[in-house]
Amino acid sequence: MMDVLIDTDAADRLVADMLPALPGERIALREAIGRVLRQIVRAETAQPPFDRVMMDGVALRWRDELSRRLRVAGAQMAGEVGQALRDDDDCIDVTTGAVLPEGCDCVIPVERFRRDGDVVALEEGYDPARGQFIHRRGADCAEGAVVLEGGVRIGGPEMSMLASNGVATVEVARAPRIAIISTGDELVPVEATLRPGQIRRSNDLALAASLERGGFDRVSLHHVLDDRDAVRDSLDALLRAHDVLVLSGGVSMGQRDFVPDCLESLGVRCVLHGIAQRPGKPIWVGIGPESQAVFALPGNPVSSLVCMTRYVRPALLRASGLAVPVEYASIRGDTGKPLRLARFLPVRLESDPSGTLLAHARGWSNSGDFTALGGTHGIVELPPERSIAEGAPVRVFRW
Amino acid sequence: MMDVLIDTDAADRLVADMLPALPGERIALREAIGRVLRQIVRAETAQPPFDRVMMDGVALRWRDELSRRLRVAGAQMAGEVGQALRDDDDCIDVTTGAVLPEGCDCVIPVERFRRDGDVVALEEGYDPARGQFIHRRGADCAEGAVVLEGGVRIGGPEMSMLASNGVATVEVARAPRIAIISTGDELVPVEATLRPGQIRRSNDLALAASLERGGFDRVSLHHVLDDRDAVRDSLDALLRAHDVLVLSGGVSMGQRDFVPDCLESLGVRCVLHGIAQRPGKPIWVGIGPESQAVFALPGNPVSSLVCMTRYVRPALLRASGLAVPVEYASIRGDTGKPLRLARFLPVRLESDPSGTLLAHARGWSNSGDFTALGGTHGIVELPPERSIAEGAPVRVFRW
Repeated sequence: MMDVLIDTDAADRLVADMLPALPGERIALREAIGRVLRQIVRAETAQPPFDRVMMDGVALRWRDELSRRLRVAGAQMAGEVGQALRDDDDCIDVTTGAVLPEGCDCVIPVERFRRDGDVVALEEGYDPARGQFIHRRGADCAEGAVVLEGGVRIGGPEMSMLASNGVATVEVARAPRIAIISTGDELVPVEATLRPGQIRRSNDLALAASLERGGFDRVSLHHVLDDRDAVRDSLDALLRAHDVLVLSGGVSMGQRDFVPDCLESLGVRCVLHGIAQRPGKPIWVGIGPESQAVFALPGNPVSSLVCMTRYVRPALLRASGLAVPVEYASIRGDTGKPLRLARFLPVRLESDPSGTLLAHARGWSNSGDFTALGGTHGIVELPPERSIAEGAPVRVFRW
Repeated sequence: MMDVLIDTDAADRLVADMLPALPGERIALREAIGRVLRQIVRAETAQPPFDRVMMDGVALRWRDELSRRLRVAGAQMAGEVGQALRDDDDCIDVTTGAVLPEGCDCVIPVERFRRDGDVVALEEGYDPARGQFIHRRGADCAEGAVVLEGGVRIGGPEMSMLASNGVATVEVARAPRIAIISTGDELVPVEATLRPGQIRRSNDLALAASLERGGFDRVSLHHVLDDRDAVRDSLDALLRAHDVLVLSGGVSMGQRDFVPDCLESLGVRCVLHGIAQRPGKPIWVGIGPESQAVFALPGNPVSSLVCMTRYVRPALLRASGLAVPVEYASIRGDTGKPLRLARFLPVRLESDPSGTLLAHARGWSNSGDFTALGGTHGIVELPPERSIAEGAPVRVFRW
């Protein structure tokens, strides 16, 4: 099986084809921040919904020979209605955002007049234009026009459009229920006193952090010992309650690496086992009987984070209905010798003032060297069998 | 005051100088995902902490003339200790991650031998090297070396290093307590039926979304009517309980825009009022008696989001102790005519395969045109008084 390793892009496609779209659910708008929109949003009314005053000042009826002194006959603040101009020598006090009073077609900003009680005196020589500082009903958008498509994460602009158009409950992709399972007798909790041969359990927390930072926070952590029955029972229970299982450890060829066997005995079909890359080569990916996605990642900290960043998170984004943006950078620094495998190197990213994204290679002494990750922003993927020249474009995956 | 508008960079500096660093707090590691690290992390032990087996296979003592058949005298799995090699013709079963058994200095991977009961027969012609597949104690990192500096958000790699080094509770920047206050009689809740002149309250939700997506989720929403006493009382109470107030609306020159007056009467000192930019010109920024930051943003949806993205979020990042990365892109499309003010335009971002970040300008018909925000990723800042050529580098601020 190690002889027929697939390449990184083929792995991507296999994973993409395997995963069904997550179902949608309807939730309160306030809860929808960061969720993936799964509906079209249409303009509830024309935008603006009325002729809207754009400046604080007075509204009046424009004429060729405008009076330079006008009587303030009323006021219409934002949120109010009902004012109408009766006399061409009158004006009406208005504020930004107010409905333009009936009969008016021009707004004079407050900087352009002096005011004395009920009388407004226009600045000398000031020549207002008909229609000025009025944002006309429907100028931005007709009623019913599509203002937002699905397939985006709900951030500031999206929330602005959802709320303005009265979308009080919103259809979003259901957040996937994710179980992270670390396997291995040598793993002890973070707060434990280390005995010889023991290692702190860090992959589950690191993978959870990666998922949460990527917008997936419905995550639970589990630890099972290297015992075939215990692993099988745990996986059986976890498969029933989750959309996604992420395992760390137990997928290389050792005699205790029975995770793939266990998974297959539970009806999880192997989609790929092994990718022509370093680190992360022994990754195992499968699909469960209820279409649960199962990612069994190598146990070393760097390999598991690389696989999470390169495959798991993009797959979950796609299943949520998001387009996964492809990002490139220009490589800087020593990238080492080519291999027959694709290589992932940690990088610091820097935006050059020209607009080019620079990826400064850090390198690592080996695939377990997580101390090289400090201060890095992501990884670059270097293709197999090729030397990479300084400045060459490479694909970037942010942590 | 509108005559002496400061420019965007000067505004940035004023805001940066105004805001004190947020205090630190110590929290459980599991709660620290996404928080800003405020401590140095040192290697608890050498990395690796012991001579670590890098492959599943057998460990043995290397010699020039190695036996081709070896007796398996024991097993040492990951997490176990105590095995020692007694005889040079013996070997010991090992798995990836195991402590190298005493007396061994070479690991033969499982692919390189056949096994028959207790006897292992090496592949014909296979010539292992002394020390192979052993990750030596301390090879990556000496005990006590700094593996992580403060001033980063805790994601996957950071969590990996914190957990591996036994940092069970971690010093992070306290999350700022933020109140978002929308002002205006014309604002009604999202689920309300609109009457003429009314507008749904959307800015508070949009600003909350922007803050939460930027990593600030300790946010509460408030609405006050256009009444001087109500505004003053609300602001007074909110100032006592928050580190940051973000107001939307009530800061231009209209007669009802008494927010700056109210703030100053509560001891909030004006740091800036008005920036030479469009949209977002009327922004008011102040600092409270207990160093609370107060950002009073213009009421229109686009202006408030632009000011949030350009000033508020970067200021909060700096106060948290994070370096705020500067990002540039190469502009594409029609950017319109220069103004005497800096201009912000919404853009779609695309990473070109060369590594250049492209910003495709969308433009808007006016500063209230939030329908232009759909499908955009951020804004670009165009300097005043200059035509911007296609392809010119510009600063980008992601939503």
